[in-house]
Amino acid sequence: MQPLRENTVFVGNKPVMNYVLAVVTQFNNGAEEVAIKARGKAISRAVDTAEISLNRFLVGVTKKDIVISTEIIDTDSGKTNVSSIEIILIHNK
Amino acid sequence: MQPLRENTVFVGNKPVMNYVLAVVTQFNNGAEEVAIKARGKAISRAVDTAEISLNRFLVGVTKKDIVISTEIIDTDSGKTNVSSIEIILIHNK
Repeated sequence: MQPLRENTVFVGNKPVMNYVLAVVTQFNNGAEEVAIKARGKAISRAVDTAEISLNRFLVGVTKKDIVISTEIIDTDSGKTNVSSIEIILIHNK
Repeated sequence: MQPLRENTVFVGNKPVMNYVLAVVTQFNNGAEEVAIKARGKAISRAVDTAEISLNRFLVGVTKKDIVISTEIIDTDSGKTNVSSIEIILIHNK
């Protein structure tokens, strides 16, 4: 796992509400932006995290940017490509 | 399944290369834009489709826009929410 910048929620295989709670908590603690990141099959859950956070819990927060890219990962059987997504939410003052 | 607009590839549960081939074929047939759409767990495969098409097969094509949203689906057990993604690729003249 690479170092994460502040206010990043990295979405993996846990239940989606764990990540929703992490996002909402960061905004409640005063964050202006929160980045939701995921790779591979967790990408769907990252989109769920953003949508549930925005539709059910956050007021005055919108999507700022969505970026998809390909990352090269080292595995036991060599390098492999994996898709990734970064969804950036921003609090509108 | 709702009617799809022209030049839309709807990504489901088939192998990703099926959808990559559909995208590449549409551009080869002269499409200026192709929209890649998916819902739920297929969202990850839609991102893979876009990344593989752009990195390995398409020249002069870039991402124009990425939109995520929540759709309400009727099921046997009532209405349920599902996340969706639309990735729009554009051919730069």
